[in-house]
Amino acid sequence: MTSSPKIPSVDPVKLDRLAEVSVKIGLQLQPGQDLLITAPLAAVPLVRRITEHAYKAGAGLVTALYNDEETTLMRYRNAPDDSFDRSAGWLYEGMAKAFSENTARLAVAGDNPMLLSAEDPEKVARANRAQSRAYQPALEKIAGFDINWNIVSYPTPSWARQVFPDQDPDVAVAMLADAIFAASRVDVEDPVSAWRDHNAALHRRTAWLNAHAFSALHFKGPGTNLTVGLAGEHEWHGGASVAKNGITCNPNIPTEEVFTTPHALRVDGHVSSTKPLSHQGTLIENIKVRFEGGKIVEAKATRGEEVFNKVLGTDEGARRLGEVALVPNSSPISASGLLFFNTLFDENAASHIALGQCYSKCFINGDRLTPDEVAARGGNKSLIHIDWMIGSGEIDVDGINKDGSAVPVMRKGEWV
Amino acid sequence: MTSSPKIPSVDPVKLDRLAEVSVKIGLQLQPGQDLLITAPLAAVPLVRRITEHAYKAGAGLVTALYNDEETTLMRYRNAPDDSFDRSAGWLYEGMAKAFSENTARLAVAGDNPMLLSAEDPEKVARANRAQSRAYQPALEKIAGFDINWNIVSYPTPSWARQVFPDQDPDVAVAMLADAIFAASRVDVEDPVSAWRDHNAALHRRTAWLNAHAFSALHFKGPGTNLTVGLAGEHEWHGGASVAKNGITCNPNIPTEEVFTTPHALRVDGHVSSTKPLSHQGTLIENIKVRFEGGKIVEAKATRGEEVFNKVLGTDEGARRLGEVALVPNSSPISASGLLFFNTLFDENAASHIALGQCYSKCFINGDRLTPDEVAARGGNKSLIHIDWMIGSGEIDVDGINKDGSAVPVMRKGEWV
Ligand SMILES: [Zn+2]
Ligand SMILES: [Zn+2]
Ligand SMILES: [Zn+2]
Ligand SMILES: [Zn+2]
Repeated sequence: MTSSPKIPSVDPVKLDRLAEVSVKIGLQLQPGQDLLITAPLAAVPLVRRITEHAYKAGAGLVTALYNDEETTLMRYRNAPDDSFDRSAGWLYEGMAKAFSENTARLAVAGDNPMLLSAEDPEKVARANRAQSRAYQPALEKIAGFDINWNIVSYPTPSWARQVFPDQDPDVAVAMLADAIFAASRVDVEDPVSAWRDHNAALHRRTAWLNAHAFSALHFKGPGTNLTVGLAGEHEWHGGASVAKNGITCNPNIPTEEVFTTPHALRVDGHVSSTKPLSHQGTLIENIKVRFEGGKIVEAKATRGEEVFNKVLGTDEGARRLGEVALVPNSSPISASGLLFFNTLFDENAASHIALGQCYSKCFINGDRLTPDEVAARGGNKSLIHIDWMIGSGEIDVDGINKDGSAVPVMRKGEWV
Repeated sequence: MTSSPKIPSVDPVKLDRLAEVSVKIGLQLQPGQDLLITAPLAAVPLVRRITEHAYKAGAGLVTALYNDEETTLMRYRNAPDDSFDRSAGWLYEGMAKAFSENTARLAVAGDNPMLLSAEDPEKVARANRAQSRAYQPALEKIAGFDINWNIVSYPTPSWARQVFPDQDPDVAVAMLADAIFAASRVDVEDPVSAWRDHNAALHRRTAWLNAHAFSALHFKGPGTNLTVGLAGEHEWHGGASVAKNGITCNPNIPTEEVFTTPHALRVDGHVSSTKPLSHQGTLIENIKVRFEGGKIVEAKATRGEEVFNKVLGTDEGARRLGEVALVPNSSPISASGLLFFNTLFDENAASHIALGQCYSKCFINGDRLTPDEVAARGGNKSLIHIDWMIGSGEIDVDGINKDGSAVPVMRKGEWV
């Protein structure tokens, strides 16, 4: 007689590999360096694996801050109106202080992307604004790449339910776990060397784009005819990259993109999203916007339009671009055919743009530029940075030289 | 046909009542006030109930910080030696800032009291010292009663295993839950009014002691003959009490003690502990110490003596007293006959003394005294505050007047 053994939802061997890749490739955590982890409560098993790998790598002190979807909902359902303009400023200031003392930063993603979809969008927007403001000093150190940082994902039950709504809860978690492990390239024997090869391939792309130093990119396809001017002295990045503290790290796991800084004043034309954007609990679908002089002057969406317009109203820079990124349609994440409802994955399935804050590292000698110098080159400034997908198998991309001549970069979503 | 239903380990109705008592009696949380909760990961169910009650009471923002016993052990077993002098200073500074902005403080107790008993005591002492130093600015605001604060307990599996080692894990949790609910006076119909009655009874005791304004207390019994001089202008407290922010709260749930500030230089004689002291993962048993001029000049213990001596070596004030407290031997916690391995409970089973930092509120007009004025009256200063039990059914206590005459206070552990 045999009985079918209960198969664990999340493969512990691959989970441990993901933690190892996060510490050794994602962070390249240095001996003696402290580590700050933020994670959903449900991601405790991954946080524990990461913590052990971090200490084995010589971490000084590992501190984890958890957020709990249950208590977030309790706030929306019970807190007084004033609550939604509050934030834990003392905690975000503390995080900024930790980063200024060279603490590395690891974010575990995995929250239910639809958590707040039934809540009052006005309250959601106010709470997000209060949190963004409080988080700004810490975010600047991450966006400015002062320290090595990394994001990895954990298959929480609430996220798995969104990606696989027709599956049993356990099966959904197992399927999302497998998708995360494949996308994060830990479903192979030696994930650390697989990541080294992948980084080398991405660096060949950025070298080619940096050699061309295009003045703009032109995106053309169904619903899209967009010219994205590139910032002066912009630099393409992708894969592993050197933080200002001298540590080479891979901020995003997974990552398939090469990306740079657009010119905040030189974006013109119209563009349509090619995948839904899941923004802090709300799904925004079929975005169509028109740019004039770098600014969004018209915005529509078939779902979540109110939230999208609130996002655009965050501040002056929220209507302008802070990033443009190229991802081939054949990327493993695109090939999976899944919609993850999570930017970290979905942005690596398609070329994309980001509203809001630019990365100062995406300039030549970017780490030495003052905020004024970044602005003078066309770098955008905002409290937000929100990526959304504009690439697909039907989009062509040209690089536009200063003399107006065009160089094919992508055809039907693939590198030429 | 019937099937016996699976009885949940922790009664959800009583758990919810404990959360309600914590918010309404323990904290008296005010509308618009923010709340900072610290808790073991296993206490998530109570944190959620507390969060909901806090928002219903009008909380501005509730923030929970979790600690994880698993990752604490990973540190001891994998981290480099330097790690044990590190602390998350940025986080403790943030907590101090939150308290200075009138954020209320709730600590959920429930960690395994023996967690670190197998670890290197040298590392444990170094890690505790680094953490105590970093926590000092925040602790001063709590010890100084700047804000309303509260401690409640949750029956975690690892704690339950220590209290009921011979029981099934589920049964142990259920038994510890019942013991916590009874000690915390939430096993009655209307726990909020039960707490009001209990507070009134404690206030009658403190009023009597304050009217006498004894110069010293004398403890006598097996292994104990100790005179504890009381600080100049000392004041007895117990039960509900007014924080400097004007809010009346019950810091400890449960609480059975009345307590005041001894004179740091006027403690003489010898004293024996009557219950084990569980100190940050180590059990210290059968403490015997001798005081001269307020200072411990001889210290022994049959178990944990090394850790106890490290505690005494923390700083100058660690060998002197910061608190003396009276608890009748018939207190409900003493009557339970249990050893909780947790000061919050065990100190409320017996009269006790505390090494280290005094409470400045235990002086007449204490909230207006400068640190120098507190010291001039005999108030002790230290990085630590560690209570240990010296009361039992065999201990007599006299109040000593300034002229040397004695007034019976307790006989065989009960109020006269
Ligand atoms: Zn991107
Ligand atoms: Zn981006
Ligand atoms: Zn006490
Ligand atoms: Zn005490």
